[in-house]
Amino acid sequence: MNNKELQRERISALRQQLSMAGLQAAIIPQADPHMSEYLAEHWQLRRWLSGFSGSAGTVVVTADRAMLWTDSRYFLQAAQELDGTGIELMKDGLPETPSIAQWLCANLTAGSKVGIDGMLFSVSEARTLRADLELFGIELDPFFDVADTIWTDRPALPSDKLFIHAPEYAGEEVPSKLARIMERVAAAPADATFISALDEIAWTLNIRCRDVHHNPVATGFLYIDANGAKLLVDPAKMTAEVEAYLKAAAVDTLPYADVKAFLASLPSDVKVLVEPGRTAIEIFNILGERAYCGQSAVAMLKACKNDTQVEGIRHAMERDGAALVRAFMELEQLMDSDTTVTELDVDALLLKHRSRSDMFFDTSFGTIAGYGPHGAIVHYSADEASNATLHKSSLLLVDSGAQYYDGTTDITRTVALGQPTDRERHDFTLVMKGHIALGTAIFPEGTCGMQLDALARQFLWKEGLSYLHGTGHGVGHFLNVHEGPQSIRLNYMPAPLTPGMITSNEPGLYREGVHGIRCENLVLTVKAMTTEFGNFYKFETLTLFPFDLRLFDTTLMTDAEIQWINDYHREVRERLSPLLDEAERLWLEAKTAPLMRDTIY
Amino acid sequence: MNNKELQRERISALRQQLSMAGLQAAIIPQADPHMSEYLAEHWQLRRWLSGFSGSAGTVVVTADRAMLWTDSRYFLQAAQELDGTGIELMKDGLPETPSIAQWLCANLTAGSKVGIDGMLFSVSEARTLRADLELFGIELDPFFDVADTIWTDRPALPSDKLFIHAPEYAGEEVPSKLARIMERVAAAPADATFISALDEIAWTLNIRCRDVHHNPVATGFLYIDANGAKLLVDPAKMTAEVEAYLKAAAVDTLPYADVKAFLASLPSDVKVLVEPGRTAIEIFNILGERAYCGQSAVAMLKACKNDTQVEGIRHAMERDGAALVRAFMELEQLMDSDTTVTELDVDALLLKHRSRSDMFFDTSFGTIAGYGPHGAIVHYSADEASNATLHKSSLLLVDSGAQYYDGTTDITRTVALGQPTDRERHDFTLVMKGHIALGTAIFPEGTCGMQLDALARQFLWKEGLSYLHGTGHGVGHFLNVHEGPQSIRLNYMPAPLTPGMITSNEPGLYREGVHGIRCENLVLTVKAMTTEFGNFYKFETLTLFPFDLRLFDTTLMTDAEIQWINDYHREVRERLSPLLDEAERLWLEAKTAPLMRDTIY
Repeated sequence: MNNKELQRERISALRQQLSMAGLQAAIIPQADPHMSEYLAEHWQLRRWLSGFSGSAGTVVVTADRAMLWTDSRYFLQAAQELDGTGIELMKDGLPETPSIAQWLCANLTAGSKVGIDGMLFSVSEARTLRADLELFGIELDPFFDVADTIWTDRPALPSDKLFIHAPEYAGEEVPSKLARIMERVAAAPADATFISALDEIAWTLNIRCRDVHHNPVATGFLYIDANGAKLLVDPAKMTAEVEAYLKAAAVDTLPYADVKAFLASLPSDVKVLVEPGRTAIEIFNILGERAYCGQSAVAMLKACKNDTQVEGIRHAMERDGAALVRAFMELEQLMDSDTTVTELDVDALLLKHRSRSDMFFDTSFGTIAGYGPHGAIVHYSADEASNATLHKSSLLLVDSGAQYYDGTTDITRTVALGQPTDRERHDFTLVMKGHIALGTAIFPEGTCGMQLDALARQFLWKEGLSYLHGTGHGVGHFLNVHEGPQSIRLNYMPAPLTPGMITSNEPGLYREGVHGIRCENLVLTVKAMTTEFGNFYKFETLTLFPFDLRLFDTTLMTDAEIQWINDYHREVRERLSPLLDEAERLWLEAKTAPLMRDTIY
Repeated sequence: MNNKELQRERISALRQQLSMAGLQAAIIPQADPHMSEYLAEHWQLRRWLSGFSGSAGTVVVTADRAMLWTDSRYFLQAAQELDGTGIELMKDGLPETPSIAQWLCANLTAGSKVGIDGMLFSVSEARTLRADLELFGIELDPFFDVADTIWTDRPALPSDKLFIHAPEYAGEEVPSKLARIMERVAAAPADATFISALDEIAWTLNIRCRDVHHNPVATGFLYIDANGAKLLVDPAKMTAEVEAYLKAAAVDTLPYADVKAFLASLPSDVKVLVEPGRTAIEIFNILGERAYCGQSAVAMLKACKNDTQVEGIRHAMERDGAALVRAFMELEQLMDSDTTVTELDVDALLLKHRSRSDMFFDTSFGTIAGYGPHGAIVHYSADEASNATLHKSSLLLVDSGAQYYDGTTDITRTVALGQPTDRERHDFTLVMKGHIALGTAIFPEGTCGMQLDALARQFLWKEGLSYLHGTGHGVGHFLNVHEGPQSIRLNYMPAPLTPGMITSNEPGLYREGVHGIRCENLVLTVKAMTTEFGNFYKFETLTLFPFDLRLFDTTLMTDAEIQWINDYHREVRERLSPLLDEAERLWLEAKTAPLMRDTIY
């Protein structure tokens, strides 16, 4: 049996379950009960069912149709992988493509029932879906959980061991965190909170794990009330050391599998704060009258790093910058010696130099090393088939990062591999002008990212150019490289940029078939001044690695912008040099030479 | 009986009603059943009850307390007017002041009932209030309508006659508007819509009236379905001409007083679109299952002006600019001849020159002419007591506008009455840099005002300065000077800036006790270009009047900013000159001389 037949068989097994449950359709999302961005193998039902290996997609199955919705990043890949499976590709985001709810409303009759696994849809998602379907008389059944039934060789839950994130890096002990969380719970007002988000649990308990590649989190749930906390976690993951550590902080453990029974057993009069965007609808339903929807009691505390964490990320940035110097230097040497170098080699070089540190734990996401036209594919990830060989022309975009015990990094640099063209320099400089405008902004307390986003885009917009991704995302501390609540983007997220937050500053420009440019530093929100108009904040740049001097078109730049580059490069040089050997120092010195008008680099 | 005793007697009459209705508190807002910004006398219950004459404030009365919540603009005035009435001033916006809901929750016991007139609270307001009170076991009673009972000499509803807004100005006939509205209603999806907002009704039916000072609207409600429309309006306001005009467009009329009976009589299966922010909760409740909450079907259509309207506002701006030339020129002459000139005289000068046109209908809001420290009071309105005499020093801020049949104007200029100080020039130039940055922005389709707001504030923020009002509001066409849905401000409003929209661009800076600066033009959103990245829009400046050359500090300005001022002033000169006599032309020529570095004006 070939793979295509396998998919047909699996869809058919699902249809049998649909029919037995009296449902007309099922929705199988890319999700876990923790609303994670990256999933452990155990939760890859959508991939198993469809054979589509992309990281975003949702399958809808009816008695006679099977469809996969995915976005433009994956149109090509999905078309190839779905070919012959009988699963149709629905190109999400195109004007002619209906949303899943629209498709269901148009194709099912009133009185139909649509099944979902209520552990894989957040309260917000399920409510919106239910409201959309109800308008057409279609019912949502949140108990269609068939993974264990049809997926006979389903991988087990991750069984990696928990470990403690040492206080010298975390900077705050668990009892203090629990107390601060409970202050927020009480203010909600609620009596307790139930946390599904894995990074929130890891932060709260100062624990980490290897359950999910790139994200050092442990699979679990956490209940916190005035008496302490209960961690619901697979007993196989526990160690005596972690158990004792948690016990000392009034955190008991219960089996992960008991989550529903645990929720059902809570006293009927307890008010439990849950965040509707990060809590499964089934959990909400079991809580019933006890559930109180509100903002996470953890997210803001986790986002605002303490002094120890900030000190840690500064060290991590120096270490990361030094590793990048070595990696880019070796890349240059390989190119100069006419050795064949590919995009995957760039990834390997970065990993080689970063992983030499004892503080290195993992990469913080899959490296994007896109050469030439590949740079224009925003979420490009080189594989054996696409892997391009680098030549001494065009641009190389490298977006990468590491998980160190003392902090998480995420940096993008775009470098010219040959003598840059005028258009390359023009495009790069517009992106950098936006990067500098955002990086040097001063703004009043209460300002949200959406308000600053246009500062980074204004120079591109003036020429009818744009980029469709966000300008900035929050970054965890030895945790997920994407975290909330803040972001700097076109969409509104009502989370003010607050001192201690770490956010990326990464405008870009992508010319399809030509090149891609992105310039990314991580920045820390810090106090700027207090005046009669209140508190004002600014950004302190954390990332330490030069921008490619050859790519600046100084005729487009103000004196202040040139000065910013030179000040930044001086700091990069001063802070990285002590970690480098003589040859590396000389290399860095050349890369951080003063940018001047009328000078060719 | 003095005024203070009057207020005590009125509060006492209200308390009697409270007690009879079995309520523990009542909330009396500044509102009408149309959620209007400006109220006809008939709806000024809050003012009658409290004696407080400000335009914003809410009274709460319990058995033993009476309080007025108002914002910082009115702290001084309210303290004076409330003195001796027994009504306490609650200073809204101060950290120590609870919101009304918070106060009620803290001071009433569970089981208490709070009365409101459900015709004076929008669906959104009432829902939020109810949710807040419910948490503390307090019930909201939406049927506490006592105005007619206690307010024995209550003014009647306005009885001014409706008149037709001629098609040569409106640019679109009623049947076409009704058809476009019904397209949006059907897409909601709904069968009909019920409109309470007076400006939406006036726009839809091409009718105007003098019911409310500054806003040329008529008091009414409008119901639209596939068969036509029904206007609920006081029969006394109708003329034979208007009735025939409406009849021809399939618009029937019903008495305004029948609104509740009319709503109750609608078929039970009709789905009626209402906008929760502009529809009274009582109307929503009467509609019951028939109500469908969604975005207004009229707001976006009304906001995007057609070519006739745009042509009209261009003419109105030329007329308005010429009137301003005459007014400011006369002001200068009076000052030069050492005649005593006051803030109220400035208002009178503007009215004198504007009202000489046959096209003039009314002012579009109360003129703000604030001299020196008065300029720093954002909503300053001179009265006999405050009226300041102008001297040949400091700054004069003049914010004013007119209702012309072919368009509505709103302009603010800040001028130096003597030789400006360095600080005055510095502050003014920072404000103008923001004004120019916003005015010259180019932005992609879909961009909302909040995303552009920081462009206007960035230069102030860099120095720890700010202003707390919005940067831009929508402006109607011979309609309300404040209209939605778009705005450019710190708060999120999900309404994209769309071609045809007219919006103000009015950054400012207010130094308490010193001076106020605001620079305001109206701008039209127009297409800029279409590229591979989509459609891009920009602003075309509509307002035509020079900025004070003496107030620019060119050392703070880029060449491009200076060029913008000179290009703008050239256009002002070219378009206004044909309307001016020789002396006026010479005056304007001097005021629009090229701005140059190292030149004193």
